[in-house]
Parts: sequence; structure tokens; C-alpha cells
Amino acid sequence: MPSVIPRIQAALAPTLGFLLDPEFDRLLDDPSIANFALGNPQEPPLAELVSALQAALEPRNKNWFAYKMNEEPSRRVIAEAIGPRLGVPFATADIFVTNGGFGAIASALRAVSGPGDEVIFVSPPWFFYEPLIIAMGADAVRVRLQPPAFDLDTDAIAAAITPRTSAVLINTPHNPTGRVYPPEQLRALAAALTAASQEQGRTIYLLSDEPYHRIVFDDRRFATPAAFYPATLVLYSYGKTLLSPGMRMGYIALAPGMPGAAQLRDTLFLSQVVTGWAFANADLQHALPQIELLSIDVGALERRRDRVIPALQAMGYRTELPEGTFYAMVKSPLEDDREFAHVLRRHGVLVLPGAVVEVPGWFRISLTANDEMVERGIPGFERALAEVSTRR
Amino acid sequence: MPSVIPRIQAALAPTLGFLLDPEFDRLLDDPSIANFALGNPQEPPLAELVSALQAALEPRNKNWFAYKMNEEPSRRVIAEAIGPRLGVPFATADIFVTNGGFGAIASALRAVSGPGDEVIFVSPPWFFYEPLIIAMGADAVRVRLQPPAFDLDTDAIAAAITPRTSAVLINTPHNPTGRVYPPEQLRALAAALTAASQEQGRTIYLLSDEPYHRIVFDDRRFATPAAFYPATLVLYSYGKTLLSPGMRMGYIALAPGMPGAAQLRDTLFLSQVVTGWAFANADLQHALPQIELLSIDVGALERRRDRVIPALQAMGYRTELPEGTFYAMVKSPLEDDREFAHVLRRHGVLVLPGAVVEVPGWFRISLTANDEMVERGIPGFERALAEVSTRR
Repeated sequence: MPSVIPRIQAALAPTLGFLLDPEFDRLLDDPSIANFALGNPQEPPLAELVSALQAALEPRNKNWFAYKMNEEPSRRVIAEAIGPRLGVPFATADIFVTNGGFGAIASALRAVSGPGDEVIFVSPPWFFYEPLIIAMGADAVRVRLQPPAFDLDTDAIAAAITPRTSAVLINTPHNPTGRVYPPEQLRALAAALTAASQEQGRTIYLLSDEPYHRIVFDDRRFATPAAFYPATLVLYSYGKTLLSPGMRMGYIALAPGMPGAAQLRDTLFLSQVVTGWAFANADLQHALPQIELLSIDVGALERRRDRVIPALQAMGYRTELPEGTFYAMVKSPLEDDREFAHVLRRHGVLVLPGAVVEVPGWFRISLTANDEMVERGIPGFERALAEVSTRR
Repeated sequence: MPSVIPRIQAALAPTLGFLLDPEFDRLLDDPSIANFALGNPQEPPLAELVSALQAALEPRNKNWFAYKMNEEPSRRVIAEAIGPRLGVPFATADIFVTNGGFGAIASALRAVSGPGDEVIFVSPPWFFYEPLIIAMGADAVRVRLQPPAFDLDTDAIAAAITPRTSAVLINTPHNPTGRVYPPEQLRALAAALTAASQEQGRTIYLLSDEPYHRIVFDDRRFATPAAFYPATLVLYSYGKTLLSPGMRMGYIALAPGMPGAAQLRDTLFLSQVVTGWAFANADLQHALPQIELLSIDVGALERRRDRVIPALQAMGYRTELPEGTFYAMVKSPLEDDREFAHVLRRHGVLVLPGAVVEVPGWFRISLTANDEMVERGIPGFERALAEVSTRR
């Protein structure tokens, strides 16, 4: 039995124990439950996505379903779209078209780190950062962000850097807190990584996991770390913008000025190959010009946020308006967030206990709950709070 | 820079040096060339595949494009199809639905091997076995099969086993030789692996890469190693049967009687997750009941084999009728197979030099060349042979 699998099992145990619990799985599709637990679709996929994919399946030549890699037209569509969106010019050759965010993260991690290296990630994390780092043979080093603001803590990251550090993996807009790191925090991080790279005599790469970078609220302009630190690899998935994670496409984009870019490009391609051919399927790449234009209704998500968060605050829950993503963190009125999640279940509301995302004492809600669920769920939140208030 | 990437680069250098050569790439789509080089489509994809996928894109519920894993209906379709086909009963829970053959091989390798282990593979190999083994942190141990028969050499495999051996990776029907190993060779291998597992005090897994197991000729019945050795993982890709490798789906199937099956199932699932979410996309899984029924025209492939191979033999080339796959090996009339491949190019024929697949002095032809190319190519083979015959 390989040495990494037990470590991956240990790292994933809290997540999988929760997500693969048959009772939880049953509740996810229970029509009487208001599902705020996961960022999963509660409505059918976008009709424009379906029709774009159907049209893209029509073969136009013999190579229509042949092996696809980082296809030149796909790279161009992405480079041209994200340049203006992120305010950073990306070269076509610096775009790598992956089979979703997992493929992007795994391929990027393998390209910049290996056995003996350390990769720093921030907590609360996405469930799979630590397992993916371990799978590449590197050691995962956790840096905790502090509630309630969950600011990007540059001092804590800098303090975690050692001679073995090959990369720092951050996530903005941040799941599960909904934070979008402001330019000044990214500038501070860039300065710290630049200094540390010089001190350590090696490039410390910044992996910027940004699957929510188009899901930001209040007319906010998203700031990518790639604008501040040239050794940044932007990692993206279309699965969030389209709320269709079963149709997997994403990308890696190298920031302009990337040190050793030529070699890193070759390495990334090889890394995609050995990461189980981590390229997007033919239909998705053929439909990419249309897919790039599509998005779920972010305005509707924002209106839902503005319905839910103030309602929870008015009841007495401690929570703040998320700046982006599908998510918000709410302080659990019971110290044991798992216990309170069970109270909420009894009142018809499903949430993600904070312990699962390394923030005990809090819980995460997802705004992908549909409007009907929201209206049904809000009284459930109120009843659950009332129930536990009498206990304290 | 990670330690495994330079090793992967070195292992892939002959392959990529050839495949990524711009001149070769240009010739692949040159209409004046008869392309016998790669198992790539020379005709548009199957119309039934296109219509099945288009229909499968129509959403029937909110989860239509949600995260897909080893979906129960997909597992059932596969188990029910391959039981009768392979003559081995597979349990539904023993099927793992991957994003193609790469995903199957990578996930299986990670599940059964890790740093410090050795994985034995046979040469001539598929291009990517060695890189994938190295990527998992294991050491790749090569066992050479001898031309012209390229029989499965059990003694050589047994001699390569050490206390570090975790798995043996074989391929039947065999690319590039077209051999389909007969039951007696598989029985001998099973006996050797059973004895070695006992001697070493650990299960030595057999990874049976079988993407061509439906592409066999002469009414041959394919024999899977899973029928002979319970610690077998069958690895499959639909990319060959459909000649559509850009739409990626495959599977891992555990043989009945697999030792430690319950733990291996959990491990394989985790392995798929950390191998960049190595599950087939939603559209492919929804269309799987139809896709399982589809195949390129194997009879046409067999007729093409029966046109090409006897024609080459009649000219004086040394080659044998392949028993399955798209491929046949032909002895190069020049010792330097790369040089002879260049002679063939001048006569309008593109082949794969044997050196690229570790068989110097031979070359590989692919029967996916269409009939028009075949008729155009045959005189080219004749002229090239005549040209070099005057040199000897």
C-alpha cells in the first residue's frame, strides 16, 4: 500500500465522513429541506450552455473528437477574455486548458513542487488542497486565517516559509468565507514572497485558486494576485461560473513576467499529461467561445445574499455580507457547530458545520439555495436559534 | 523544480521529440500523405456517438451537470456489459468510471503503488507507462518482449520481481505489436505472480491495460488476465473503440476475488479524486448506455489488415497479421528505422519508427489509415523498399 494514501485518507476523513454520510446524502435531495450546505446546483443548467455544447458536438472535421490538449483556439479565447477581466495581459502560450479546477490545481502543484518540498495553504481551506498537495509528494503546511474577518495574513504566511517552501496556495474570492482580498493585502503578500524568494534563493510560486473570480458583489472589481506577483499561476474552473461541475473545464494562466516561463510551460504540459491527461474534453473546448460568455445570474445571487444575511443578523446570528463566492460563514450559537447543524436539520435547514472546513464554532451557508428554499429556510434558522437560546 | 519532472522528461524525450516535431505534425494533416503513423481518426466520429451525446446533454433534473463520480447507473451498465464480454462476473461496486485510459492508469497506479515501490512494465510499451509510473513516485522496471512474436515472457517478468515490486502492468491486445496473449500465457503469468506474491509476502497487483479488448480479429475471443489472476485491475478506455480520444471515458474494473477488495475500493475512489478528479464528465456518463453499444467497424479494420499485411509481405517486408488493436510491427529493411521512415515519407507514407516504441529496427503501422490512404500508400511502401534495396 502506498505511503501517501493513508495520509490523504487522514486529511480527508472529516470531509468525507461528513459528505459521504448516507443521511446527509439523502437530505441533499429531500424536497422538505432547505439546502444551504453545498455549492451545488438547485436549478437545471443554463439553457445556453446546453445548446452551445450540443452545437459543438457536430463534427466539422476528422479531428473533431481526436486528442485535445492546450488547443490554440481555446488558449486564445481564454487569454483574450481574462486580459481585460483581470486587468493583466496574458500571453496565449501561458494558458493551459484543464479538465476543471482539480486538474488545474493538481497539474500546477506537480509542476512547481515535488517530494521534499513544502506547499503552504491557508485555512479555512477548500476540502481538497491538503490531499492534492500530499498526492504530489510534497508536505502541506497550514496557515490559519483569523475569524471574523479572515484577512489574508501575510505575516503568518511569511513566518511559515522555510528553505523547503516551493509554493503558497491561496484562494480569492475565498471559499468558505466569501472574502475577496483587497489589492493592499495582495501587494503585501507579493512583497513578502519576493523577499522570501530572494532570501531562500529559489522562486516561491504563488498558486492563486480563483474559480469564483467572476462571482463578486457590490460592483467590486476583482484583484488577482497575478497583477502583483509575477511568479503567480492563476487557477480557474468554469464549474462555478456555470454551476456545472460535472462538465469539467478550467485553466492555468501564468502571470506576465513569470520567472523561467519557457521551462515552466514545458513542465506544465508534461504535468497535465501525467496527471491523467488533464485537458478539457473536445466538446467543451469547441464550445469555449460561447462558454466564456456565459454565467449564472450573479445579480440574483447578490439579491439572495441581501435577503439572507441581513435576515440572519436581525435574528441575532453573527455573520457578515460576503464580498464574493457562493458562501458566507455564520457563527454557531452553540460552541459545537456539528450539534447546531443537527438542530438546524430538525428545523428543515441543511448547512455545512465549520469543523468540516477547519473553523469549529461556525457554520457555512451556500447562496446556491434557490429562492423558494431561502424563504422556507429563514424561519428554520429562526426556530433553531430560539431553541438553543433557551439552553444557554 | 520537482525531482520527478526531469525523470519524466527524460523518459518521454524520444516520444515527444518525434510526436511534437512540427514537420511530423504538419505531415499528419497533409492530404498527399498516407498516414499510417498514429491511431488517430481519419474519418469523422460515429454519427450515433454524436446523437447520443447531444441527447444526453438535455437536462432531466437539477443535478444533470452536478459533480459526477462513479455513478451507480454507469457502474451497472459497465458491469453488465463486460461480464458476458470478458466471461468474468464483475460486481457493480468494483467498477470505477474514469476520464479515459490515462485517468484509469494513473488512478490505478496511485492506488497500488507509491514511493519506494517498483512497477514492472513490458517493452515495447505504450508511450506513457513509464512517465505515469514515475509520476506516482514509484520506479519503473522494464521487461523486454522479444520480436518477432513479442510473446508475454513470464520468466522475464518473474525474474524482474523484487521485494519492492507492487504491480506488473501489461497490455493486451498489445500496442504496438497487435498480439493478443493467449490463455496459456496469462495462466502462466498468474501462476508466477501468485508464487511471487507468496514469496514476497505482499499482493503483487496485475494492471491489465485493455483499451483494445473489443478490437480483435478472426472471430478470436479475447481473454482477460482478470479471468486468471484475482488481483487484477482491468483498465479500459472508450477512446479506441470509438476512435474518439478527445471525449474521455474509461473504467477500472476489479477482478472477482480481489484480495483486500473493500480497502482497495476506498483507495481507488480517493485516488481518482487526487488524480485531478479522474471521473468521466456528465454528458459521457449520461450517454453511457448508448456508448457501450457503439464501436467503430472492426470488420472494416480486419479487411484493411488483410489488404495491407499480405501486400507488404508480398513485397518482401517481414511482418505478421496482428491479432487485434490498430497496429502491426514491420521489420525495417534498413537497420536504422528512423532513416527508413524518412525514406517512406519521401514516398508519401507516414509510419512510426520503432525506436519511438523501444523496438529499433522495426516500424509500426496503424490500420486507422482510411481505405483511400491504404491504396495510395501501398505503392509508396513498394517504392521505398525498392529504393533501399539498391543500397544494400
